[in-house]
Amino acid sequence: MEQLHRNTNALPQVPQSFAGKPSVWAAIASHVHTKTYAKGETVIHHGDEAKFLWLVFSGWVKLIRQTPDGKETIVGLCHDGDFFGEAALFVNANYPSNAEVISDNAELATISASVMRDLMKQNPTLSAAVMEMFGERASQAQLKLEHMSTMSTAQRLGCFLLRLCGHRNSNQATIHIPVEKYLVASFLGMKPETLSRSQAQLKTVGVEVHGTQVHVSDIEKLREYVCSSCSESGSCETEED
Amino acid sequence: MEQLHRNTNALPQVPQSFAGKPSVWAAIASHVHTKTYAKGETVIHHGDEAKFLWLVFSGWVKLIRQTPDGKETIVGLCHDGDFFGEAALFVNANYPSNAEVISDNAELATISASVMRDLMKQNPTLSAAVMEMFGERASQAQLKLEHMSTMSTAQRLGCFLLRLCGHRNSNQATIHIPVEKYLVASFLGMKPETLSRSQAQLKTVGVEVHGTQVHVSDIEKLREYVCSSCSESGSCETEED
Repeated sequence: MEQLHRNTNALPQVPQSFAGKPSVWAAIASHVHTKTYAKGETVIHHGDEAKFLWLVFSGWVKLIRQTPDGKETIVGLCHDGDFFGEAALFVNANYPSNAEVISDNAELATISASVMRDLMKQNPTLSAAVMEMFGERASQAQLKLEHMSTMSTAQRLGCFLLRLCGHRNSNQATIHIPVEKYLVASFLGMKPETLSRSQAQLKTVGVEVHGTQVHVSDIEKLREYVCSSCSESGSCETEED
Repeated sequence: MEQLHRNTNALPQVPQSFAGKPSVWAAIASHVHTKTYAKGETVIHHGDEAKFLWLVFSGWVKLIRQTPDGKETIVGLCHDGDFFGEAALFVNANYPSNAEVISDNAELATISASVMRDLMKQNPTLSAAVMEMFGERASQAQLKLEHMSTMSTAQRLGCFLLRLCGHRNSNQATIHIPVEKYLVASFLGMKPETLSRSQAQLKTVGVEVHGTQVHVSDIEKLREYVCSSCSESGSCETEED
């Protein structure tokens, strides 16, 4: 795979996954290669040998799986700061999904799996940080499963939006989601018409959708509406510190 | 917490999580303490500082979470060979759920979090193996989420049963599930009446339930029925090698 090496000083940002861990980022930054991909490009294939860990610097990527009887599910919608292809950290692992760019373009970074494994062997801090990322990934999937039982579909959509709002000083946000609606619905485990109904319900707590722009006029109100049905309420990354 | 130290030679088994990793088990076995707990005992509390990693040697344990608005969900049903409380491997982490014994009794083992972290720092093989366990845990949660979209409730119940069958030479199995039905339903994200209907549907593929005993007369047939709707079909731990 052709990849452009770029001086790390020019990297647009430290990926969110490493934001609180500058020493970890320092350990890997010089091994990271970035490249811009166009909409529709499949960057990893389900079942291929996992040779790289991937980071999203900008744009959106869907992680998609297909069952033998032809059903497709979106198992991930990755954007700025996310990582995928973490199977690469295990010897002889294969990618568990396809990854395809779904925004107009996406700037993605790769780090070689074998380089990463070597760095981790030499650096217990890096190793511990990566394990923590895995733990976080497992908790998130677990929590999403819990939400299937405890939350309404509107609350689940609200939770998705709150995560996109992230930490900010202001109590309002306009977020850009350049992703087709049926993909968001599939990712949230609901039908497109259920997503539309959920969207309408969220208007009552100040969420307005205009095309790919979503305006959240009162983040705190949305949080109250969503997080009362979540067992992580109070300790989730969308909460104020 | 009072704990009985027992000579590791007398350990009933190597936990399933370590079955393929004898060197990993050798590294931790002498630090493992076991104790028998009675039905109804809560061994960890949601939010408490995570001081121990727990292994189940026998019996069943439910992992349960409560939302602020009073909804309860079963986020885990652990039995022989499972582990829980893995938050203990991160510094300053808290347990993300309650854990309560739900079989007549359960033999549980603990290993101190700080001891485990020290061992991992000294032993890259152990560190890599633990990371792989985390990766596996994240994949399982991810797969369970996928099944919510791709599988019928009967297939989801079938998948749960196939995992309990595990690897065996015979094509049939009788498994003992000493767990109240509403707990299994909650764990599978369905209502008790849906579980009953799913149970009835599975009769057509040779699954008979008698109290706490489940007889699977044709594992291969059940696998075909279930795994055609799973993207991991062919590479899951319930599959034949």
